[in-house]
Amino acid sequence: MDLLQKISDSLVTLKEKKPLVHHITNYVTVNDCANITLAIGASPVMADDIGEVEEMVSFASALVLNIGTLNSRSIESMVAVGKKARAKGIPVVFDPVGVGATALRTATAKRIIREVGPTVIRGNMSEIKIIAGLDADIKGVDSVADEADGAQVAGNLAQRVDCVVAITGQQDIIAQGERLCRIDNGHAIMSQVTGTGCMATSLIACYCGATDDWFSGAAAGVMTMGLAGELARQSLKPGEGIGTFRMRLFDAVWAMTPEAVRKGGRIIHE
Amino acid sequence: MDLLQKISDSLVTLKEKKPLVHHITNYVTVNDCANITLAIGASPVMADDIGEVEEMVSFASALVLNIGTLNSRSIESMVAVGKKARAKGIPVVFDPVGVGATALRTATAKRIIREVGPTVIRGNMSEIKIIAGLDADIKGVDSVADEADGAQVAGNLAQRVDCVVAITGQQDIIAQGERLCRIDNGHAIMSQVTGTGCMATSLIACYCGATDDWFSGAAAGVMTMGLAGELARQSLKPGEGIGTFRMRLFDAVWAMTPEAVRKGGRIIHE
Amino acid sequence: MDLLQKISDSLVTLKEKKPLVHHITNYVTVNDCANITLAIGASPVMADDIGEVEEMVSFASALVLNIGTLNSRSIESMVAVGKKARAKGIPVVFDPVGVGATALRTATAKRIIREVGPTVIRGNMSEIKIIAGLDADIKGVDSVADEADGAQVAGNLAQRVDCVVAITGQQDIIAQGERLCRIDNGHAIMSQVTGTGCMATSLIACYCGATDDWFSGAAAGVMTMGLAGELARQSLKPGEGIGTFRMRLFDAVWAMTPEAVRKGGRIIHE
Repeated sequence: MDLLQKISDSLVTLKEKKPLVHHITNYVTVNDCANITLAIGASPVMADDIGEVEEMVSFASALVLNIGTLNSRSIESMVAVGKKARAKGIPVVFDPVGVGATALRTATAKRIIREVGPTVIRGNMSEIKIIAGLDADIKGVDSVADEADGAQVAGNLAQRVDCVVAITGQQDIIAQGERLCRIDNGHAIMSQVTGTGCMATSLIACYCGATDDWFSGAAAGVMTMGLAGELARQSLKPGEGIGTFRMRLFDAVWAMTPEAVRKGGRIIHE
Repeated sequence: MDLLQKISDSLVTLKEKKPLVHHITNYVTVNDCANITLAIGASPVMADDIGEVEEMVSFASALVLNIGTLNSRSIESMVAVGKKARAKGIPVVFDPVGVGATALRTATAKRIIREVGPTVIRGNMSEIKIIAGLDADIKGVDSVADEADGAQVAGNLAQRVDCVVAITGQQDIIAQGERLCRIDNGHAIMSQVTGTGCMATSLIACYCGATDDWFSGAAAGVMTMGLAGELARQSLKPGEGIGTFRMRLFDAVWAMTPEAVRKGGRIIHE
Repeated sequence: MDLLQKISDSLVTLKEKKPLVHHITNYVTVNDCANITLAIGASPVMADDIGEVEEMVSFASALVLNIGTLNSRSIESMVAVGKKARAKGIPVVFDPVGVGATALRTATAKRIIREVGPTVIRGNMSEIKIIAGLDADIKGVDSVADEADGAQVAGNLAQRVDCVVAITGQQDIIAQGERLCRIDNGHAIMSQVTGTGCMATSLIACYCGATDDWFSGAAAGVMTMGLAGELARQSLKPGEGIGTFRMRLFDAVWAMTPEAVRKGGRIIHE
């Protein structure tokens, strides 16, 4: 089946199944992640204490691990809950926020990849290159890496760690095994709001909680976020700015339909 | 005096007294709780370190305990600050978010009820049934319980633990001793924004910080949130969605007047 | 050079340099701080684990320390990262949220001032008076202190601790050595949104990350926030309230231009 059709179908399935998505995420954008999860039609739960995470994830359809504000306490919870999720066949979507900026982030990302084995890894170009062991700089949590060789980087990493790799940037890249596509949705203004990357990760988890095809789930999450960014940008009237744009992102995800996906989604197969 | 009149009067008192409301709450919706507290005319303070919570609450007019993202550190702070508040006669409003989803949440909720003795417990139907020791399921932090027997559940629990019980749902139920009423405000769209339950809890605390009648304070908080949800929903123009709705919730609470309460408030006495 | 011209020039420099601003801040308004940092054209990074903060700040152009929800873990991180920043010549902007409300906050603020030596201290009148060792009350994190002697208080404190002192209130006061000015921008409605103080602190750090004149940087941050508050207030149409106002704050900071600063900025020299 055509990937765009598959994505649009998976939105229908998501809204029917209303998957519960367990998050251990950062305290900067956690509210946005919860609201975007609700906006697309899924159900968020945030819990990070080692005393409850394994029990909580048992009822979930997907798990998000996001190291944006990691600490010694949450790292142990992430590893424990990630292992539990994988043992139960629950997809784990990993967002290695700021990996490479500090040794702690790099070591933690490597540990999660080694000990948990995520189903999907979503990051910006700097983050994915650093995870792939390549030479790349990162500015705090923002990418400053060249995007030209992204498809090769994503493809190699996906094969090496046996998962779906999603790179979000000017064009988004999704890779799994031999499969690879680019998604050409989104708008540059999205980088001026905190959490658009984290929200893309949450949306991927929402879709992966409703489908068994993680490649298509990752593409669906990334495309939904990008399309919402375009629609929110188009909606801006003179005098409206970044605060209004941010609010409209939620309006746009909430109003997303299979028709809108088929009409606006732009996939480049390679 | 008529309950609706009492609620509308208590809004006047609240705006005069500007009660300080100390919160130990979750990091998902804490910003919303602070902003809703300011919007209604009270003053929020968030502090959770065991080294300062007892001192901080001494100056407060009400205390919120919300276990949405509990951890071993915050649990001890909640118990200590709750005891201190009760010893000083400060009302404690307890929100047992996600109780029943994990053993840790259930044990913590029971401990807070036993050791602190909250003034008001506010939850959804699943949460209140689980606290009442009844068989009920919960989906993460969302209710999936039957609402038909809610009045009986609330009444029994209120008498057993000697506090006000507030259940928010399609109709809200408030119970204390022999007193019982339903509030028929609100809109289903509210469940698509994270934190509407937490914000209702904060509003209850704002009112309870300005009145000695906790039953009326709980009804006032729940009604204010419900009415705001209706007004925000009515304000939506074509093309506006959940992000706009969320923003308008704050507009509506901020603009709430005694007249709007008397005009829009719907109480069903039993 | 004229201070207003200097401020307007520094906005140009900020947008060119896009300084990375490392924050250890509270979990109530952290999302707002990140978004305001992006809105003005800088780049935020939040990290608080003792295992990574010193490494993270090494790449930053400014550091924010905000004790709004301090805890035993974050206090140690703040002291360590603050020392590291100072050793590297990176400006440290300290926001002593709620100092005086508890002994823990007062002791922590004193410790940060003594051990770190901040570049800029920004607080409300209660907070700055308490830091200055004067008799003043505080209501949670809100000022209830008399503003009449603010200039003297700021001037004395600035000389004693050898830093820039910024007091935000009805009129804002900036002091350093013999330099002193008042900024007469802003609107009373700003106190009805949580985080306007924290966001002013973040904006100060953004400017101080792009200039070597901390006095001018502090004035620029405070003026930008005040002007944005005025513009957001003016934009409100009938029926719009505090939620809309809050969103428009971000619109206004995002749209801020050197021309708007020169046109709207009001400085009172003493």
